[in-house]
Amino acid sequence: MTRALIVGGGLTAATLAWRLSQDGVESTVLERAEQTGGLVRSDHMGGVLYEPHGSHIFHTEDEEVWNLANQMTPFRDYRHRVDILIEGKILNWPILLSDIDAQSRSEEIKAELEARRDVDAEARAQAANFEEWCLELMGPTLYDRYIRPYTEKQWGRPARTLSASWAPRRVSVRWDNDPYLFPDPYQGWPAGPNGYTDLLDGLFGAPGVTVRTGVDVTLETLDRHVREEQADLVVLTCPLDEFCGNELGALEWRGIDVRSVHIPHIEYAQGAMVVNYPGEGYPFIRIHETKHASGQQIEGTVLGFEFTGAPSRHYPIELPENRALNDRYQDHLRGVIGAERVHFAGRLANYVYIDMDDCMREALTTAEQLLDGLARDGAPGAA
Amino acid sequence: MTRALIVGGGLTAATLAWRLSQDGVESTVLERAEQTGGLVRSDHMGGVLYEPHGSHIFHTEDEEVWNLANQMTPFRDYRHRVDILIEGKILNWPILLSDIDAQSRSEEIKAELEARRDVDAEARAQAANFEEWCLELMGPTLYDRYIRPYTEKQWGRPARTLSASWAPRRVSVRWDNDPYLFPDPYQGWPAGPNGYTDLLDGLFGAPGVTVRTGVDVTLETLDRHVREEQADLVVLTCPLDEFCGNELGALEWRGIDVRSVHIPHIEYAQGAMVVNYPGEGYPFIRIHETKHASGQQIEGTVLGFEFTGAPSRHYPIELPENRALNDRYQDHLRGVIGAERVHFAGRLANYVYIDMDDCMREALTTAEQLLDGLARDGAPGAA
Ligand SMILES: Cc1cc2nc3c(=O)[nH]c(=O)nc-3n(C[C@H](O)[C@H](O)[C@H](O)COP(=O)(O)OP(=O)(O)OC[C@H]3O[C@@H](n4cnc5c(N)ncnc54)[C@H](O)[C@@H]3O)c2cc1C
Ligand SMILES: Cc1cc2nc3c(=O)[nH]c(=O)nc-3n(C[C@H](O)[C@H](O)[C@H](O)COP(=O)(O)OP(=O)(O)OC[C@H]3O[C@@H](n4cnc5c(N)ncnc54)[C@H](O)[C@@H]3O)c2cc1C
Repeated sequence: MTRALIVGGGLTAATLAWRLSQDGVESTVLERAEQTGGLVRSDHMGGVLYEPHGSHIFHTEDEEVWNLANQMTPFRDYRHRVDILIEGKILNWPILLSDIDAQSRSEEIKAELEARRDVDAEARAQAANFEEWCLELMGPTLYDRYIRPYTEKQWGRPARTLSASWAPRRVSVRWDNDPYLFPDPYQGWPAGPNGYTDLLDGLFGAPGVTVRTGVDVTLETLDRHVREEQADLVVLTCPLDEFCGNELGALEWRGIDVRSVHIPHIEYAQGAMVVNYPGEGYPFIRIHETKHASGQQIEGTVLGFEFTGAPSRHYPIELPENRALNDRYQDHLRGVIGAERVHFAGRLANYVYIDMDDCMREALTTAEQLLDGLARDGAPGAA
Repeated sequence: MTRALIVGGGLTAATLAWRLSQDGVESTVLERAEQTGGLVRSDHMGGVLYEPHGSHIFHTEDEEVWNLANQMTPFRDYRHRVDILIEGKILNWPILLSDIDAQSRSEEIKAELEARRDVDAEARAQAANFEEWCLELMGPTLYDRYIRPYTEKQWGRPARTLSASWAPRRVSVRWDNDPYLFPDPYQGWPAGPNGYTDLLDGLFGAPGVTVRTGVDVTLETLDRHVREEQADLVVLTCPLDEFCGNELGALEWRGIDVRSVHIPHIEYAQGAMVVNYPGEGYPFIRIHETKHASGQQIEGTVLGFEFTGAPSRHYPIELPENRALNDRYQDHLRGVIGAERVHFAGRLANYVYIDMDDCMREALTTAEQLLDGLARDGAPGAA
């Protein structure tokens, strides 16, 4: 019987362990925290279901992943809408044409938009940086209200020092006034009593999966765990720099800190699950209220205030030197552990931002490569 | 030896017990919560000193009270400044003339102000209600930005249904651009390690004062406590309706709920100790950050989000029928306990909003009346 040791117990580990189990490969998941689930886990405060790490919306075009998720927990038909505070008023994010008249200097804004309507997407794609891309789309007034302050709060640096490459997925002006954030055909939020925790528990509940929490694994202690668990293979879903004691240097991340409070006497505190606060005057960047997505029938609500600039790992800083450093960690670990015995999966070990659907898809792919290798070569000798 | 039983362990009880002790009268304080201090108590979260019930500024003209407070804990020279979000911008509260140009339609606002500059305070005092008073002071534009939404959020009713009587103390336009909220000669915030808790502990530490926490006293259980403590006198600083099992009906209050979060990576999250959020779009009405007043040298900060409409006792609803109901409770209790044996003190038993300086002054006065009675008539027979 082959057994995999999976370091880290988030959605990547859960999906991987489930897929291996389908083919009769057992696994042990070692999670540092007291509970599994990583960023995706839901929890309760005062009975109210909420997301300790901020809102997660499941939205995908990937039917197989969607079906797998729904097999673990039913999903509610929730479509994500985001509010944004502009000049102290609640408007829609992304920008709707119909929200322009609610703003000061609306005629100027319309003229700025009109002047740019003919710039096609391809020309814009040549923009030198994020700021330039946005200015070419919407002009300076909207940019200064919706985009610049939010972006600089999120990234802690001027928007013109950011790459234009991720703008098209994140920024748009809706000429058709469609208020919803995501276009994907499959969208929802878990309908069960425990939110995403039901998804995770479903996956971890597959036969032959053992989960141990409160176990922090490092390169130094890995061998011991491999022996104890009698594992043939290792999958790392944890940050590699920390895992290696920062041997080759630390990877840069931009982090957030979400702090949640329970308010027993308020049914709904805001009009949407997520409200963006781009202005510099606001100490937080977003406020989350899971109840809009969970639809939970309960008195009271929970608000999560999101603060940027925290020393935690949320957004990788996409610079060539950071990518190269993560590659070097992977090579280093292949050297030490054995290229045939170690695999990397998930947002941390691959140093990427990936949504849950991509995370599950990649975990399935990694599991299948691993299974293919086993079918071809058999289990690599135990440590 | 005479002994007083004091029900409730807030600043009123602390000041009373201290004053009685000065004249050799012992007391037992029974406090329902696990800690004394009521609304005024300070606490720590992640090492950061903060105020669980929202900001308290000590400001007074009463030199004796100021000296007493300073005798218990040194005060820092903190002068209170409040920020307010107007059109998404941070401006000053109260309204400064110099903040008008930062707003849209500033010329209109100035014309509205100018037109009212000659309305004298006395004429304004005749205003029929709070809204009218404010409109006569500042005109409709400023009123709709600074006052109406804040007031309606705070009171949960239209501003025109509120009395004009408390407007002069709360609303002003500063032609001289003085940004500070209070004019009082003595102002500050406790300089010690535990904020207001040091003030309270200092007062409760007087000789002959016994404090018991976790004891909820009602009219039904009062006799037993009086016997156990061998008390000759009773001072109630608790809400009388609840104390009497709502026998004559419930007193109306407007309550808030302050929810605090610790943010370890932020030194200061906002520019002032208190930031007002008048807009309807914001789910809270104020955000508190005690660090501005405490001056504590520490990494991290604590923000307190204040939500209105909570079922708690913060602001009495000043209507004749409510005042009359509280009077009836006092009469009722004088009848049951004996007019010579029971005294009422503090914001709850007297159904009033009083600042800390007035609270201490009234507690001193009540103690002195009680001492005079003892000197004149001796202790009333024990229960
Ligand atoms: C701010 C933000 C918002 C997001 N919103 C969405 C959204 O709306 N929709 C969506 O589809 N996706 C969203 N995502 C993406 C989603 O969070 C990820 O796809 C998912 O968390 C990836 O799971 P993971 O297992 O790779 O990583 P994680 O969830 O980070 O799990 C990693 C686990 O490994 C553990 N671990 C780390 N080091 C060790 C160690 N040395 N030993 C043992 N255990 C260790 C950690 O404690 C953690 O439990 C969002 C991500 C972020 C950052
Ligand atoms: C929102 C708000 C902001 C304020 N800001 C300021 C400010 O900036 N500056 C200023 O000077 N003042 C301020 N104040 C006023 C200050 O809070 C009061 O002056 C002070 O709290 C009065 O103390 P107290 O002992 O009368 O009441 P409390 O502080 O309410 O104490 C009463 C105590 O009695 C206890 N109790 C109640 N019932 C029972 C029972 N049945 N048995 C036993 N114990 C019981 C309670 O648990 C509580 O500990 C503010 C007040 C409010 C409401």
